[in-house]
Amino acid sequence: MYIMVDFRVDRLTTGIKGLDKYMKGGWVKGSVNLVSGKTGTGKTAFSMSFIYSGAQEGEPGVYVTTEEGIEDVKADIGSMFGWDLSAMEKKRLVSFLSIRPTLPTKTMTTDQINQIIKIYVFNLTAKIEDAIKAARAQRVVIDSMSLIEMFIKDEYFAKVALMQLVEKLKTLNVTALLTGTVPEASEALSGRGIIEYVVDSIVKLDFIPVTEEFKRTLLIRKMRRTDHSTLVHPLDITKDGIRIIDIKDIK
Amino acid sequence: MYIMVDFRVDRLTTGIKGLDKYMKGGWVKGSVNLVSGKTGTGKTAFSMSFIYSGAQEGEPGVYVTTEEGIEDVKADIGSMFGWDLSAMEKKRLVSFLSIRPTLPTKTMTTDQINQIIKIYVFNLTAKIEDAIKAARAQRVVIDSMSLIEMFIKDEYFAKVALMQLVEKLKTLNVTALLTGTVPEASEALSGRGIIEYVVDSIVKLDFIPVTEEFKRTLLIRKMRRTDHSTLVHPLDITKDGIRIIDIKDIK
Amino acid sequence: MYIMVDFRVDRLTTGIKGLDKYMKGGWVKGSVNLVSGKTGTGKTAFSMSFIYSGAQEGEPGVYVTTEEGIEDVKADIGSMFGWDLSAMEKKRLVSFLSIRPTLPTKTMTTDQINQIIKIYVFNLTAKIEDAIKAARAQRVVIDSMSLIEMFIKDEYFAKVALMQLVEKLKTLNVTALLTGTVPEASEALSGRGIIEYVVDSIVKLDFIPVTEEFKRTLLIRKMRRTDHSTLVHPLDITKDGIRIIDIKDIK
Amino acid sequence: MYIMVDFRVDRLTTGIKGLDKYMKGGWVKGSVNLVSGKTGTGKTAFSMSFIYSGAQEGEPGVYVTTEEGIEDVKADIGSMFGWDLSAMEKKRLVSFLSIRPTLPTKTMTTDQINQIIKIYVFNLTAKIEDAIKAARAQRVVIDSMSLIEMFIKDEYFAKVALMQLVEKLKTLNVTALLTGTVPEASEALSGRGIIEYVVDSIVKLDFIPVTEEFKRTLLIRKMRRTDHSTLVHPLDITKDGIRIIDIKDIK
Amino acid sequence: MYIMVDFRVDRLTTGIKGLDKYMKGGWVKGSVNLVSGKTGTGKTAFSMSFIYSGAQEGEPGVYVTTEEGIEDVKADIGSMFGWDLSAMEKKRLVSFLSIRPTLPTKTMTTDQINQIIKIYVFNLTAKIEDAIKAARAQRVVIDSMSLIEMFIKDEYFAKVALMQLVEKLKTLNVTALLTGTVPEASEALSGRGIIEYVVDSIVKLDFIPVTEEFKRTLLIRKMRRTDHSTLVHPLDITKDGIRIIDIKDIK
Amino acid sequence: MYIMVDFRVDRLTTGIKGLDKYMKGGWVKGSVNLVSGKTGTGKTAFSMSFIYSGAQEGEPGVYVTTEEGIEDVKADIGSMFGWDLSAMEKKRLVSFLSIRPTLPTKTMTTDQINQIIKIYVFNLTAKIEDAIKAARAQRVVIDSMSLIEMFIKDEYFAKVALMQLVEKLKTLNVTALLTGTVPEASEALSGRGIIEYVVDSIVKLDFIPVTEEFKRTLLIRKMRRTDHSTLVHPLDITKDGIRIIDIKDIK
Repeated sequence: MYIMVDFRVDRLTTGIKGLDKYMKGGWVKGSVNLVSGKTGTGKTAFSMSFIYSGAQEGEPGVYVTTEEGIEDVKADIGSMFGWDLSAMEKKRLVSFLSIRPTLPTKTMTTDQINQIIKIYVFNLTAKIEDAIKAARAQRVVIDSMSLIEMFIKDEYFAKVALMQLVEKLKTLNVTALLTGTVPEASEALSGRGIIEYVVDSIVKLDFIPVTEEFKRTLLIRKMRRTDHSTLVHPLDITKDGIRIIDIKDIK
Repeated sequence: MYIMVDFRVDRLTTGIKGLDKYMKGGWVKGSVNLVSGKTGTGKTAFSMSFIYSGAQEGEPGVYVTTEEGIEDVKADIGSMFGWDLSAMEKKRLVSFLSIRPTLPTKTMTTDQINQIIKIYVFNLTAKIEDAIKAARAQRVVIDSMSLIEMFIKDEYFAKVALMQLVEKLKTLNVTALLTGTVPEASEALSGRGIIEYVVDSIVKLDFIPVTEEFKRTLLIRKMRRTDHSTLVHPLDITKDGIRIIDIKDIK
Repeated sequence: MYIMVDFRVDRLTTGIKGLDKYMKGGWVKGSVNLVSGKTGTGKTAFSMSFIYSGAQEGEPGVYVTTEEGIEDVKADIGSMFGWDLSAMEKKRLVSFLSIRPTLPTKTMTTDQINQIIKIYVFNLTAKIEDAIKAARAQRVVIDSMSLIEMFIKDEYFAKVALMQLVEKLKTLNVTALLTGTVPEASEALSGRGIIEYVVDSIVKLDFIPVTEEFKRTLLIRKMRRTDHSTLVHPLDITKDGIRIIDIKDIK
Repeated sequence: MYIMVDFRVDRLTTGIKGLDKYMKGGWVKGSVNLVSGKTGTGKTAFSMSFIYSGAQEGEPGVYVTTEEGIEDVKADIGSMFGWDLSAMEKKRLVSFLSIRPTLPTKTMTTDQINQIIKIYVFNLTAKIEDAIKAARAQRVVIDSMSLIEMFIKDEYFAKVALMQLVEKLKTLNVTALLTGTVPEASEALSGRGIIEYVVDSIVKLDFIPVTEEFKRTLLIRKMRRTDHSTLVHPLDITKDGIRIIDIKDIK
Repeated sequence: MYIMVDFRVDRLTTGIKGLDKYMKGGWVKGSVNLVSGKTGTGKTAFSMSFIYSGAQEGEPGVYVTTEEGIEDVKADIGSMFGWDLSAMEKKRLVSFLSIRPTLPTKTMTTDQINQIIKIYVFNLTAKIEDAIKAARAQRVVIDSMSLIEMFIKDEYFAKVALMQLVEKLKTLNVTALLTGTVPEASEALSGRGIIEYVVDSIVKLDFIPVTEEFKRTLLIRKMRRTDHSTLVHPLDITKDGIRIIDIKDIK
Repeated sequence: MYIMVDFRVDRLTTGIKGLDKYMKGGWVKGSVNLVSGKTGTGKTAFSMSFIYSGAQEGEPGVYVTTEEGIEDVKADIGSMFGWDLSAMEKKRLVSFLSIRPTLPTKTMTTDQINQIIKIYVFNLTAKIEDAIKAARAQRVVIDSMSLIEMFIKDEYFAKVALMQLVEKLKTLNVTALLTGTVPEASEALSGRGIIEYVVDSIVKLDFIPVTEEFKRTLLIRKMRRTDHSTLVHPLDITKDGIRIIDIKDIK
């Protein structure tokens, strides 16, 4: 005899048209998720759709950028979807945080490097924590994790440091999207092949050759607590946002 | 003339519907087994099915988690299969042990590293031994071995250390499942390609593309003392647990 | 309800016949773009077409060469397309800047290397900045980034240094084309696989076998703020410049 | 004119049903042979068949295990084929020798490592020599060579050390089978790709996908002094021992 | 309106029957060109055809050999094509220069290695310069660049050093052919993948399997200032020299 | 007008039935040749056929073995082809030289290693020179070059050292066969990919899968001064020696 209990799983809209139904309603509340893809597959547009969709429903979000300038992100998204993120920012529904890397100039021992990694992850989390608390955010995006992965050379340390970052995010009661960039000719899920082990779900965006054209696709590669679609879904980036194309429609 | 003797092999249920019949009744009692697969192939659900199935038959089990939080594991499994692991825990049929990695901060010589590895494996085994004895456990899961494999850089040391861990488990008279994570684009059986040499059996879970869909599969890659199936079995993760799909049914 | 704002995107002609219509009018004003390709795929001809096309419209351009001599570039282009770049230079519509690498002769510590990288990127940018200001340039080409990528060994430092270079270019209000050379047997987008992450768009030139012939092709691999073509376009280098061949014409 | 002499080659039964006829009667007396295969391909069963088959004919054999426990090997073989190796041991027809690796704890210079390698190979050979002499053995198995290969990092040293081990075995007038484990996704003949150069023959066991099933196969890859089969033979592990399936039977 | 100027490109015969017409008349005067191919693809015969063809037209040439002996080269070519290079040498139409590598015996710091590289490239160029001036040469071959590429370990230094060598050659007003050897199983254009970036053209010789035979082929992979063939041309080495087979003839 | 001279090329029989006609009569007198192949492809039998064939014609030969024992080689060949090499040895038509590697026990600096390499190559050549002079040998085999290649770690040093060895052999007026072992899953021509650049010809032996069987093949990969076959020839090792199978016979 099975002992059945009720495990309610709250979901958050993804902001991608047609995607929520393939993941039982959306991202699991409180989960930390990876959006993985090669350059130019739409990771920024995908993760901003999550923030914007929340903001439209009154859920404040924080967008952390580690590589691009905040104004560039706003302009890219504005020209792509016509979304006025500055207006959202004024309404305190969207906050931006820029964490720029710097070049270390001191030679370091292994001790010091381990110390630096602890400080780096601690500071990063501290800044994100402050931004989340200030915004009373329910959604957070870190775009992207690539530099952080590159910074930590040792595979063991990288995995442990990323585990600690993910745990900190979970205690903050936000739902998070992390983006990870995959090298062009790779079948991996992230640059270093580590971050995928510490997240609750992985959505893989791709840009693949089909005869003489390249097509955008989306695959839900893993999703905890969710009986998810395992299809490779065609994807379209339109003026009205990102859209999953129903396979029945194209056949 | 052959001298025949009777070698009785006791078996434990796997908890996976339809799997026991493909391995002559289940896991060999006292064996140490590897569940190998890429991220998102269901290794945690698979190994918890082994613990839960034992608990239902009154056989206490210990679930050792090295990467995820205990509450996360319980919630994941609860939402997936509706199993109330906390209730099982209260009945002392399931015990949880969390072994979290920490970042070493001292620079170490080769001597010290070898010393650390010995202590690490010794401590790990000691903690697991205590938990097994306290629970009078007959089943144990270590989910996952990946960080332990990553921690030990030298291939020779890694193999010897894992051999010692497996031997310790065997003296404790438990049947063990160890999970190992395989990188996305790899055909290996574990991250470092070492743990597969020290176990009694290997079950490989996979997530493979079939036209426009990804399918879950299971292969019994090796199994000592067992004339096992060598088929690639389709697998389904349902609300009622993991199920092997009979190939005759889909043809 | 979506809040719609007007995000005007100014465009610059590419100078490649038939290409502008596939990228919504041309390069985004103020963007930094990568022209990626194996040796002999026409990167120099492609990027000089951008400078020359601007010069014909009265927009001054700066051509930075890091590997070839200025006279060689002029002669190559002259013999290929019959363009008189020296005449353009006299009219102050095209300026040339040669940044030649030298062999460091001092042994360096990690500290010194980081210092050197900062100085290297700073000096490079300073020289380009001076040339741009002197020419009042609106277009700039850096042909190629390969030596710069090779110079910086550490992946993390390379990415951060290239990010700083790109940012400097953006503050100068020019539209930039950077060329990157891909090894012969590689599917990557650049030699080190780093520069593609810091640019606004990537155009990939290729030279691929089709039965017993090799064909030139062009793919817009990524383009921010632009709903671009995702087709693999055949390309022709003719006496009248580079030309995209309309696929309808060849079928 | 050819000068013909009589070179008699004595042969030993392999203990594998149907295999002797494909290698002109069996293993060459006094030869050192490699049984190569991925994990789970039956190397232990294959090499124990050689020892057991000799014991049945009254030829004493020594089984050296470097990774598994002696009792585990006996139980595995007992449950697989019903062979009572302990009874054979009492009749002094089968002897077991366990050589367990230990973790070095001292930091070593290159000098010391070379010294250690010499001692390691010397001690290993000395122990095997003692066991062979004590048992008056005609057959010996070393299962497996993998840890020994891993222990010696330098390719040159590894080859020379293995050559010395093989030579020592030859002076002892035994016929030897060494097993070597090949990584899962490799086409090599051993883990380090070295041991195959120092043996007289190589038999490769494999486990390969055929539509939805995995099949066991055997290939005689090399065999000195023997005009051997070059076919890929299907293999079956049955209650009555390992059996070569006649290809004519399955077609 | 395009400003058209006359860019005259002088050409030199290649000495390969049927090749000049595929490269608009031959090698560009003053250019530095790479002949790339695996071992045994005819690089020496190809480049000597260039020297011999010039000598027949009264243009003196210098043949620099870095790996084979001068007498061996003369005998190889003599037996292959019946060309009497010694007679040509007496007429001062062909000169030979042998630059043999030596084994450095001093341990070197990075400073010293950089210094050595500078001296090495400087000396090499100085010797070639002397030989060219003495012979009043218009054509020069360096066969091969492989040892030079191997000598310089650092990718950045190798590229810069090769750039300096090529530039020196250009100031000497000769047309040069450099040969580069590609490893057997590689698709690269040279051993280290560097020299192809610093040359004006690349001709790739190959030896490829076609059913049960291997065929020689030639591809003009890149050629500055030239609208060249992009076909894979079959090649024949005959008693009368190397010959391009017209594809129309074999179909 | 071509200046034709007579370049006579003397040839030596290969001892392989049916092979001489595919290489214009046999090995070029005074050349140094490579026999390349994976383990078990018949390199020893192939090169001994060359020595034996010479001995039958009264041309003394030296067989240098670096890995196997002399008695083992004699017995292998005796049992394979029935050749009595000891009788040939007594007639002073075949001489054997065994050069066994030893394990260096002293830690070495780079200086010392370069010194050792010089001594190693010098000693090796000195020993071979003595043996050749003592035997008045016209043919010599070095079986195999693999350990020598492995011993020298630096690619540049390895190539220069092998060049010096080949040059020394040429001054001794012998025709030489060197064997080189290729790793199992490699398409290379030798273990380190270096020796093929310093030899006059390369014959590649292979063992390739054809449906369910493995077939022996021979390819003349390169041959200086020779218009050689470029076919992949099937090969048979029979009691009467190695034989090229005429392709017309099997079709």
